Amino acid sequence: MKVLSYGEVNLRFTPPDYQLLAQTNQLTYQVTGTGVNLLTNLSNFGMETTLLTTLPDNSVGKMAAANIRKYGIKDHHIQFNGNHMGSYFVELGYGVRPTVVTYQNRLASAFCQADPASYPIEEAVKENDIIHICGISLLLNERTRETALKLAACANEFGKPLYFDFNYRPSLNTEHSKAFIKEQYEKILSLAHTVFGGIRDLTELLDIEVNEELPYLEQLQMGISIFKQKYNVTNYVGTNRGFENHEHSLAGFMDGESFKVSSTMPVDLLDRIGAGDAYAAGIIFGLTNNWPEERILEFAVSNAVLAHTITGDVPHTTLEEVEALMEGRQQSLIR
Amino acid sequence: MKVLSYGEVNLRFTPPDYQLLAQTNQLTYQVTGTGVNLLTNLSNFGMETTLLTTLPDNSVGKMAAANIRKYGIKDHHIQFNGNHMGSYFVELGYGVRPTVVTYQNRLASAFCQADPASYPIEEAVKENDIIHICGISLLLNERTRETALKLAACANEFGKPLYFDFNYRPSLNTEHSKAFIKEQYEKILSLAHTVFGGIRDLTELLDIEVNEELPYLEQLQMGISIFKQKYNVTNYVGTNRGFENHEHSLAGFMDGESFKVSSTMPVDLLDRIGAGDAYAAGIIFGLTNNWPEERILEFAVSNAVLAHTITGDVPHTTLEEVEALMEGRQQSLIR
Amino acid sequence: MKVLSYGEVNLRFTPPDYQLLAQTNQLTYQVTGTGVNLLTNLSNFGMETTLLTTLPDNSVGKMAAANIRKYGIKDHHIQFNGNHMGSYFVELGYGVRPTVVTYQNRLASAFCQADPASYPIEEAVKENDIIHICGISLLLNERTRETALKLAACANEFGKPLYFDFNYRPSLNTEHSKAFIKEQYEKILSLAHTVFGGIRDLTELLDIEVNEELPYLEQLQMGISIFKQKYNVTNYVGTNRGFENHEHSLAGFMDGESFKVSSTMPVDLLDRIGAGDAYAAGIIFGLTNNWPEERILEFAVSNAVLAHTITGDVPHTTLEEVEALMEGRQQSLIR
Amino acid sequence: MKVLSYGEVNLRFTPPDYQLLAQTNQLTYQVTGTGVNLLTNLSNFGMETTLLTTLPDNSVGKMAAANIRKYGIKDHHIQFNGNHMGSYFVELGYGVRPTVVTYQNRLASAFCQADPASYPIEEAVKENDIIHICGISLLLNERTRETALKLAACANEFGKPLYFDFNYRPSLNTEHSKAFIKEQYEKILSLAHTVFGGIRDLTELLDIEVNEELPYLEQLQMGISIFKQKYNVTNYVGTNRGFENHEHSLAGFMDGESFKVSSTMPVDLLDRIGAGDAYAAGIIFGLTNNWPEERILEFAVSNAVLAHTITGDVPHTTLEEVEALMEGRQQSLIR
Amino acid sequence: MKVLSYGEVNLRFTPPDYQLLAQTNQLTYQVTGTGVNLLTNLSNFGMETTLLTTLPDNSVGKMAAANIRKYGIKDHHIQFNGNHMGSYFVELGYGVRPTVVTYQNRLASAFCQADPASYPIEEAVKENDIIHICGISLLLNERTRETALKLAACANEFGKPLYFDFNYRPSLNTEHSKAFIKEQYEKILSLAHTVFGGIRDLTELLDIEVNEELPYLEQLQMGISIFKQKYNVTNYVGTNRGFENHEHSLAGFMDGESFKVSSTMPVDLLDRIGAGDAYAAGIIFGLTNNWPEERILEFAVSNAVLAHTITGDVPHTTLEEVEALMEGRQQSLIR
Amino acid sequence: MKVLSYGEVNLRFTPPDYQLLAQTNQLTYQVTGTGVNLLTNLSNFGMETTLLTTLPDNSVGKMAAANIRKYGIKDHHIQFNGNHMGSYFVELGYGVRPTVVTYQNRLASAFCQADPASYPIEEAVKENDIIHICGISLLLNERTRETALKLAACANEFGKPLYFDFNYRPSLNTEHSKAFIKEQYEKILSLAHTVFGGIRDLTELLDIEVNEELPYLEQLQMGISIFKQKYNVTNYVGTNRGFENHEHSLAGFMDGESFKVSSTMPVDLLDRIGAGDAYAAGIIFGLTNNWPEERILEFAVSNAVLAHTITGDVPHTTLEEVEALMEGRQQSLIR
Repeated sequence: MKVLSYGEVNLRFTPPDYQLLAQTNQLTYQVTGTGVNLLTNLSNFGMETTLLTTLPDNSVGKMAAANIRKYGIKDHHIQFNGNHMGSYFVELGYGVRPTVVTYQNRLASAFCQADPASYPIEEAVKENDIIHICGISLLLNERTRETALKLAACANEFGKPLYFDFNYRPSLNTEHSKAFIKEQYEKILSLAHTVFGGIRDLTELLDIEVNEELPYLEQLQMGISIFKQKYNVTNYVGTNRGFENHEHSLAGFMDGESFKVSSTMPVDLLDRIGAGDAYAAGIIFGLTNNWPEERILEFAVSNAVLAHTITGDVPHTTLEEVEALMEGRQQSLIR
Repeated sequence: MKVLSYGEVNLRFTPPDYQLLAQTNQLTYQVTGTGVNLLTNLSNFGMETTLLTTLPDNSVGKMAAANIRKYGIKDHHIQFNGNHMGSYFVELGYGVRPTVVTYQNRLASAFCQADPASYPIEEAVKENDIIHICGISLLLNERTRETALKLAACANEFGKPLYFDFNYRPSLNTEHSKAFIKEQYEKILSLAHTVFGGIRDLTELLDIEVNEELPYLEQLQMGISIFKQKYNVTNYVGTNRGFENHEHSLAGFMDGESFKVSSTMPVDLLDRIGAGDAYAAGIIFGLTNNWPEERILEFAVSNAVLAHTITGDVPHTTLEEVEALMEGRQQSLIR
Repeated sequence: MKVLSYGEVNLRFTPPDYQLLAQTNQLTYQVTGTGVNLLTNLSNFGMETTLLTTLPDNSVGKMAAANIRKYGIKDHHIQFNGNHMGSYFVELGYGVRPTVVTYQNRLASAFCQADPASYPIEEAVKENDIIHICGISLLLNERTRETALKLAACANEFGKPLYFDFNYRPSLNTEHSKAFIKEQYEKILSLAHTVFGGIRDLTELLDIEVNEELPYLEQLQMGISIFKQKYNVTNYVGTNRGFENHEHSLAGFMDGESFKVSSTMPVDLLDRIGAGDAYAAGIIFGLTNNWPEERILEFAVSNAVLAHTITGDVPHTTLEEVEALMEGRQQSLIR
Repeated sequence: MKVLSYGEVNLRFTPPDYQLLAQTNQLTYQVTGTGVNLLTNLSNFGMETTLLTTLPDNSVGKMAAANIRKYGIKDHHIQFNGNHMGSYFVELGYGVRPTVVTYQNRLASAFCQADPASYPIEEAVKENDIIHICGISLLLNERTRETALKLAACANEFGKPLYFDFNYRPSLNTEHSKAFIKEQYEKILSLAHTVFGGIRDLTELLDIEVNEELPYLEQLQMGISIFKQKYNVTNYVGTNRGFENHEHSLAGFMDGESFKVSSTMPVDLLDRIGAGDAYAAGIIFGLTNNWPEERILEFAVSNAVLAHTITGDVPHTTLEEVEALMEGRQQSLIR
Repeated sequence: MKVLSYGEVNLRFTPPDYQLLAQTNQLTYQVTGTGVNLLTNLSNFGMETTLLTTLPDNSVGKMAAANIRKYGIKDHHIQFNGNHMGSYFVELGYGVRPTVVTYQNRLASAFCQADPASYPIEEAVKENDIIHICGISLLLNERTRETALKLAACANEFGKPLYFDFNYRPSLNTEHSKAFIKEQYEKILSLAHTVFGGIRDLTELLDIEVNEELPYLEQLQMGISIFKQKYNVTNYVGTNRGFENHEHSLAGFMDGESFKVSSTMPVDLLDRIGAGDAYAAGIIFGLTNNWPEERILEFAVSNAVLAHTITGDVPHTTLEEVEALMEGRQQSLIR
Repeated sequence: MKVLSYGEVNLRFTPPDYQLLAQTNQLTYQVTGTGVNLLTNLSNFGMETTLLTTLPDNSVGKMAAANIRKYGIKDHHIQFNGNHMGSYFVELGYGVRPTVVTYQNRLASAFCQADPASYPIEEAVKENDIIHICGISLLLNERTRETALKLAACANEFGKPLYFDFNYRPSLNTEHSKAFIKEQYEKILSLAHTVFGGIRDLTELLDIEVNEELPYLEQLQMGISIFKQKYNVTNYVGTNRGFENHEHSLAGFMDGESFKVSSTMPVDLLDRIGAGDAYAAGIIFGLTNNWPEERILEFAVSNAVLAHTITGDVPHTTLEEVEALMEGRQQSLIR
């Protein structure tokens, strides 16, 4: 199975040893992005993956492409143009101290400035079996929106299932009304096969109304039910985070054939970021393997739980590791 | 509000990655000290802070002053003289393995060798609203004792409240009788507005007698009550550490208007040192803002709990972070 | 008391900051090996220790010898020959993610290629009070087997107690039948005073039959009882690992005068490897001090628990630290 | 003497050990900028320095301000707004391999987006004796141009000498004609007391014509002579780089009372960037001390030569070091 | 143009900061090998490159493949089997102190143990335009020899030019007579289009006799002349190193149409290893572009000179950089 | 041959990458000292070496002893007492920028505070063939002076040749007259077999008068001649440093049978410190091997030249390396 993702590539800068930015003059960097994270993980699971993006035409862009190849992702649909790449600093939290992410400008990036016409969309769609788009591209600017919508339309035209990740962040939408953004999302949702999101995406962005007096899971189920009918989407999937007794936990939900919830797994938090992309990768892998929904959910949550224990955003998990965790064959040492 | 602290500046050397000293040839260093820690934290909270100290007149002293400025502390009352700065190695513990601190000589330091007459005490007191002194200066030698006592007297003269931190360590007193040291402490205690200490400072140094058959908190309350009457101090504040079920915890107490105890908070232990100074900073900030005592206590304990999750002695917490923790608005990720 | 250990020296390569090998171009290295680990720990406890081994005759071997001296082990019975040293990569786990060890070739090592006749066995035995052999040497090849057996025979001849560590790993035996390997182990077991092992060593390698319907500890006791009668071994000692409620634990057992089990201690897992060698060091130290068996067990388990909190394989614990933990005088900070 | 500089603050990212960006995942960062470099150097020389700039209102901006204080620069005229800071990667060259600088976007920076009206220009000018402006601010956008011109006008109004650094980089001017840019420069040049530049600034930007058949130094002298008459500038200063026999060298020139050239000094190249700012700092320091022009030139060139031997852009030289080099009292070791 | 190289992949371990192995516990590692180095360089020059090799089937092998992809080399002809990869330590020299390379065992490697029949030789040859083989494979063992000879024969069969690198190291031949090794080399030389070597390869391995009283270059020319006639090779190319007046230099020679020698270039020595592979890459690139031989030589030597200034074995040079150096357009800073 | 040295052990802290102390929060540390440096080097040359010293009785002292063992020095005459060890910061120079050494207090060290009676002087002298004392011990305080003089007297008593290193630093003598210090030196000089020093030690400390109008080497020869007669010393040895044409050089001199000067060798300066100790080690090694004086000189200078190319104070050179350099068999790469 071959997967194409259209997504922005970013640089993540992390001070070492849980230090704050002002405590050191050292950083590690990592090449990241929702598409990058997801495709790396699917490559590890054995799928063939390709990234559709634009990188700056300088040594930063070349370095990013080199790392993308290193992750096992094909680079033949990476274009080089412009001179900027979005970046962010991650000051890793510890215990009750939260991880703090500080973004530098991303609208000036090669990705945001790329001409939609410059992408070989039809060719890229034809080469692949599955198309993935991250909702951030609907928020950034006209160019990324147009590219995303063209790609979604083309996926439908050639009968390739579209996986769409809501990733709705109101703070990124500084130029338009919420109504405008909702409209963009609705265009793409109507073309999607599987959508990753939460309850607030449904209620706050799409204005779906749920009975707020119901328990949370029933509200969620109700919201999804309305959503699926309205936009004719096959699957709606997402996660719930918990924090009780000083301990983090994670559970997944999925509404495909029916609404299901995974077991709730405790989370060991080494690196807070990227688990959502790992969850999505688990879902995609399970769906393309036609696993039972229960198995898909447990696999995806186990994958996300493991992703929390890996340094950096990119979830370098393998099939064997995820299955061992999922099946309770847990070890503290593998020789 | 402007705060002045008279205190020693030290160099802390820490091997990376929880290694023991003998396991590596690498160290990180940090400029620390009770005054430095406290003032940095108060600067982060928005106060104007000044350190009164003496640093060696060489590149080590210049580097220390540079870091003190970096922390947001004014350096115009730092003098340069001599050639030595006290230092210590911190081998960070993990789980049941304790953190081990090994001090190098501090009596030869520029701070300990500085002539009391060299400090512009009156000028420094006049410029500030609050004066802070650490008890270590009563233990080190004649020069630091004299400086501390002159500063305390001057604070009283100009009506600036004196915050005094017991920090009584019998091991540092190698040249005098306990009676001598007690006498020095008594001189300064009678000038203090707010004192930071524990029960042992009262019973072991000041020979205050409490009924040892009472529960710990009642003993503490009894001891403080005697103490406050005897020395006419407005506030006596401190912390209690707990360790149960393999988990560390912290609570604060304060006897101002009345004896109060904060809630007990679990502690995530990244770096064991500096939390006491964070607690003191929280108390000072709360008192200068005339918060209710309950709020002051919760704020100070929350601040100390956060300080445990920050690499190094210096508590780089911000008002927003402390309040978020105090009010239970805890997050694992801030974007 | 003087201890001699015959054992392989390895290089351990560890990526920093819990990173996977492919995430960085940086490593720390450490000189390790069952014998190295055990002797370092016994040196810390005050014993005189000597390693009998062969290192490559190049700068890698010289560096290994330098580190062995640094650990406090005598190097006069280290020979230099050949050009290879076994090595392995350790990708440190975190929480539910296991630590992964990847071995490079060890059969080509100077240790495995060393001529048994090249070792001054008699001289080394005479100089020492206790002889230690790791079972890996029975698995590697003819040369290491022959050396181990000669050393064991010589130890018996001169009345020096032999401590033998099973360390049976079926995966290392690629050239012989299990029966052959069993035969080798039986030769050495009949010469041993104290044996380190588990239940599977007894049932799977030695074909001792136990009633599998009994609770685990009774099976273990039964197996050891048969073992001790058959091979005339004085002590059989080992550990049990537990994992419940997301928490690791460790307990030790010992069958000397009678079968005893230590208390079960929670484990903080900084570095998963080397705790078994720390446990063995604790047992050897306790036995040579003629402590009561209960104390030996508690000491050895406390030592192993501390070893889990130390970076790297080598257990750099001290007597004071272990006793403080054993006696519940636990501190989070030592100044 | 008090100096104010208006200038952009940047982040410099440098891979360690002369590695290329794609060879590592590690970086050191440094807070830099023409103004930052110059003021740090002047602070080291004993002047009081203040930076007028805008930093992002997040942990990146706070960290930058902390480093600026650490350098000894006053931070009370730093504003916090926006979320972006310009950055660049430096891949350090070695021998014949050039150092490569790759800029990320700087137009989106807090500095470029700051409203000219937000700066307390009159107050800042009044507080200081000397005003310094970097020509980059004329190239970036309308806001920085307006701020620079307002500041220059105000300096003139209050009789504070204006030091202006050409720093003309055609590549940064992507939106306007050269004529437009020339016009901006001319506005500020007519207000300047001392200008830092080269021959190409005169011929290519200002269209000053020189006889190209003359030797280089005569062309330079001729160009400066025309320039000084036209714009009524007191001093024109700059440097010439040489490379012969595999060795780099540096010389300075200055046309104040008359055209003078310094001795040519060999250059040891540890870090290629920042030497121009060190040269300018040397000139400013010499002029404010009313040294003879010959001494000013030798001092400035010696300072620039030392700056090449210091890691990073920021020239951390001291008066003693520069004078020792200038006077040939060179040592390889100072104890 | 597409190039295939059959070659071993190694791990290089380098202590940082010119330290000796015993001075630190830190290393950087790099994935290297003659084929890897050459293909990386040719990828940078714009060629499509593929490596034919076998890597261990574990996380070390996976990491190596990831780095090979990062270098821009296709990985579809990399096989995974076995568990060992050859490695070496590089203690970097400085000035008169030589760089010291210490090899660990390589005969046990996945590469050396790979079955010749396992490689898809015909398919790999057909896919490519140029075939490259390193002479080390003739020295290692029967399996690598057989693979190399099969590949060479297949290249001839399909009319793809064979580039062969002598790389004759007598020390690696421990099992056979020199006559045996000579015979193996002769088999492959007779199939080669272009051969990389020196004078000693001709005289010491192939027993070609030259008049030793002639100046060196005439001896070389005479030896090559005999060699080319005997083995019918189109080009014989190599380098000469010089060291005079405390300065290293490099020159290249080539006998294609006629015997030619490049200019002698001074060498800045950051990392001593990999320049030979850079030289070979320059020659291959020049020949495939049908450049004049003079230009090929200058390009290849310039490339090798640049390679000496890059950390690690792998020559990450670009076309632009090499041409700038070759044409004397040298800069110390590129913005 | 067995060598004993009485000397202080220090900690050296070095910021990485030629950074100044204030530019980083990272350091490497190294255990050093004249005795440590010299003995390490002699161990590398194959001699048996022992250090007589006192280290602090804490984890810093234990770490120092571990490193001393690592260097190949016997540790059985190291005592543990007190809590301080002298330390210094080394900011490495580059090119014209000098290396700057900043000492922290050393008088409070365990070494300086050790009771002369606590050392087993007679036993240590008897065990060894050669005794080495560093002149610093005559400058520090009464205790180190007394120990040095007792050791020197004992060496004479048992007929063991005494090697004495002047190391006279007027700045360390802050409590006594020069006359007092001269008297101490004279006591030990009259017991010495071989003395390491320069011309200023003779003229400035010992008040030997030379004709200052003579060329430098003749002054030196004249001074030594007077010195040898007066104090009855067998050998006087030292070095001369040169700096011309931007290049450092080194030459050695020796007056044993007659006054001789070595060839002048260019110096590559990686680390400026420790070369003097390497020179002394070369002399001691040559003398104990009864080499001709010419060979001794060339060997010692070559060793010192190599020491300049090694990171840190400690000269980790080997016999083979020194001889290769001395004999002009210089290589840039050793495989």
